[in-house]
Amino acid sequence: MTTATPASTHVRAWAAQEAAKPVVPFSYDPGPLGAEEVEVQVEHCGLCHSDLSLIDNEWGFSGYPVVGGHEVVGTVVALGAATKGLKLGQKVGIGWMAGSCMACKSCLGGEPQLCRAGQPTIVGHHGGFAERVRAHWLWTCPIPEKLDPAKAGPLLCGGVTVFSPFLNFDIKPTHRVGVVGIGGLGHLALKFARAWGCEVTAFTSSDSKRDEALALGAHQVVSSVDAKAMKAVAGRLDMVLVTVNVMLNWKALMSTLAPNGRLHLVGILPQPMEVEAFPLIGGQRSVSGSPTGSRQDIDTMLEFAARHGIEPQTEHFPMSRINDALDHLRAGKARYRVVLDADF
Amino acid sequence: MTTATPASTHVRAWAAQEAAKPVVPFSYDPGPLGAEEVEVQVEHCGLCHSDLSLIDNEWGFSGYPVVGGHEVVGTVVALGAATKGLKLGQKVGIGWMAGSCMACKSCLGGEPQLCRAGQPTIVGHHGGFAERVRAHWLWTCPIPEKLDPAKAGPLLCGGVTVFSPFLNFDIKPTHRVGVVGIGGLGHLALKFARAWGCEVTAFTSSDSKRDEALALGAHQVVSSVDAKAMKAVAGRLDMVLVTVNVMLNWKALMSTLAPNGRLHLVGILPQPMEVEAFPLIGGQRSVSGSPTGSRQDIDTMLEFAARHGIEPQTEHFPMSRINDALDHLRAGKARYRVVLDADF
Repeated sequence: MTTATPASTHVRAWAAQEAAKPVVPFSYDPGPLGAEEVEVQVEHCGLCHSDLSLIDNEWGFSGYPVVGGHEVVGTVVALGAATKGLKLGQKVGIGWMAGSCMACKSCLGGEPQLCRAGQPTIVGHHGGFAERVRAHWLWTCPIPEKLDPAKAGPLLCGGVTVFSPFLNFDIKPTHRVGVVGIGGLGHLALKFARAWGCEVTAFTSSDSKRDEALALGAHQVVSSVDAKAMKAVAGRLDMVLVTVNVMLNWKALMSTLAPNGRLHLVGILPQPMEVEAFPLIGGQRSVSGSPTGSRQDIDTMLEFAARHGIEPQTEHFPMSRINDALDHLRAGKARYRVVLDADF
Repeated sequence: MTTATPASTHVRAWAAQEAAKPVVPFSYDPGPLGAEEVEVQVEHCGLCHSDLSLIDNEWGFSGYPVVGGHEVVGTVVALGAATKGLKLGQKVGIGWMAGSCMACKSCLGGEPQLCRAGQPTIVGHHGGFAERVRAHWLWTCPIPEKLDPAKAGPLLCGGVTVFSPFLNFDIKPTHRVGVVGIGGLGHLALKFARAWGCEVTAFTSSDSKRDEALALGAHQVVSSVDAKAMKAVAGRLDMVLVTVNVMLNWKALMSTLAPNGRLHLVGILPQPMEVEAFPLIGGQRSVSGSPTGSRQDIDTMLEFAARHGIEPQTEHFPMSRINDALDHLRAGKARYRVVLDADF
C-alpha cells in the first residue's frame, strides 16, 4: 500500500508563467505520491505577500511556472505509506514548508524550519492555488476543531511567522512589544502580542489604521514618522517585530529598544539595513530574523489561537478571481488577509 | 566614619588635554570620598583601545582633560562608610564601569553594566592612568590570589567584554565559535573560547598571526580576505565574535554563521554596518552587541581565568612612558595588551 485512496495524476491550478502578468489556468501531473507525502484537497488558501514576491519575481529567483499558495486549509485525500499521525478526511493546513530532510542538525534539533534542504511549498514545488497540493506529513498540520477552516489558512504562514519569535526568543508577558506594520502579518502579531500578555505598541505611518490597531490589541499606536512620538517610546521596548518589507528609519526604531531589546525582522527587505554598533553594544541589543516556525510551533500556535479566539481578519475571493485578489493585495488594500476559496 | 584611612586630596595622573596630542602630567582634587566609594592605589593599568579612542576623540564626545585607564589593578586604600565586601589593603581591579545607579531595572535585574546612568571609569570621571582612582564598591572587584596582579588588569575590561557573551548568550561547549581580530580582546577571546570547550576558529587578515592564533587556542585559522577559505566555513559557526573596530566584509562573515548563529560585536565600528534580511530571516540569525559584563560576570570570569590559567599576553611600560605605550598601540604593534606599571 502506498496510498489509501488514489492520488492525483492531474492537478488543476493557477500559475504565473512570467513576472508581473496575470496568473492563468495551468495543470500538472504531480507524479507518484511519495511514501512520506500527503495529498490535500484545497478548500481555502491565504494570499501572502511572498506569493506576490514570487509571482512577480521580486526576489530574482522565481522559476516559472509559479503556483503560489502556502496558507492552505483542506482535507487529506491521499496518504503515502510512511506518513504519520494523519488520516483520510482530516482537516489540515500547509504553510511555508512542504518538506524537510528529517536528518540534519536542524531537523534533529527540533527546528526543521531551518533545514537547509527544506522544501518550501511554493519554490520549486507547486502550491495551494490549486485544487490539490502535496506536502510531507510533518508539514501537514491538523487544524483544531475550534478554528474556522475558512479563516485558519493565514495562521499557517503569517500567523506562525509572527508567533514563533514570542515562543523562541523567550518573550514574557511582562515584556513590551512593538509591531511595525499593520498588515497581513502585523495584525496577527498585535493579536498574539496582546494575548501573550505583553504591553503592545503598534507602529504605523498610516493614521487611518490607528483605531484599527487599537481594536486589534495595541495599547498604544505610535506614528513611526513622528519624531516626537518616537522619542516618547525611546528605550522602552523589549522586542520590535518588523512585519513590513520596505526600508524604514532603522535608527529611530533601534532607539525604541530597551536594554537587551531585539529588532526582529520577519519581512524580506529589498536592501541591506544599516545598523550602528553603539546602540547594539551599549544596550546589549540585537537585530535578528526568523522564517516560519517548526511543526511543533505551528501546533502550539494553532492551539493558542483556538484557546484565545485569535483568527485573521479576512477578505474572501473565489479562487477563480485570483487576479483580482492579487491586484487588491498589490494595491495595499487587503484588510488584512485575503483568502481564496477553492472553486474548481 | 566616612573613610577608614584618609582619601586623597591630590591625585597625580596622566591626562590628554586635547585630541591626538601626547598626554601630560596632571593632578586633580577628587573631593570628599563618597559613602559608597572606594579609593584604590593603582599598581598596574592595562591600555585598551577605547582609552585611545577617548584620548584621540575618535567617538566625538571626549571632554578634556581625559585621564584614561580602566583596566586597573591596585590596593584598596580608603573605603566610604557604606561600601560592602571590601577591606583596606585588599587587591582589587576596576574595569570599564566605575558606578551604576543600583536602582533601575537593569541594576535591579542583575545587569548593572546596562544601567543608563552608569558611570564609565574614563568618561566624565578620571581613570587609572594615575596614582589613585575611585569607583563604587560594586565595581571594585576582588582579584583572586591565583592571578598575577601585574597581568590581571586587561581581564577587567578586555577579558570580561569577550567572556560575557559566552555567559549571557547561552554558548555551550558544543558550539563552534569564531573570533575576528587577534588583538587585545581577540587573543583573550581565543583563550576563553578554547577553555569553554568550543571548536574555535580564528579569523585574521594577517598571515603573521596564524601560528600565534593556534597557540592561543584556535583549532583553525581562516583568512577573512580569502574567499575560498571563507567558503569552507560557510554555515558552520554558532557565534562569531567581532573584536575589531574596523569595517569588514559583513556579508562574508554572516555567511559563516550556522542556523541560529550570532554575529556579535564588541568593538565600536566607525560606520553603520550593512545587514541583509535574507540570511537573518532564513537562518534565524542575529547581529548583536554587548558592552562589558556585570560585576557578577567579572567575578565569574576571574574565577574561570584563575582555574584555567588564562591571562593576557602583556607588554609592560612604566606609566611614565605612557606616550610611548600609546604610540605602540596606535601603530598596531601591541602583542597583545600593554600594561602600564605605576611609577609615580
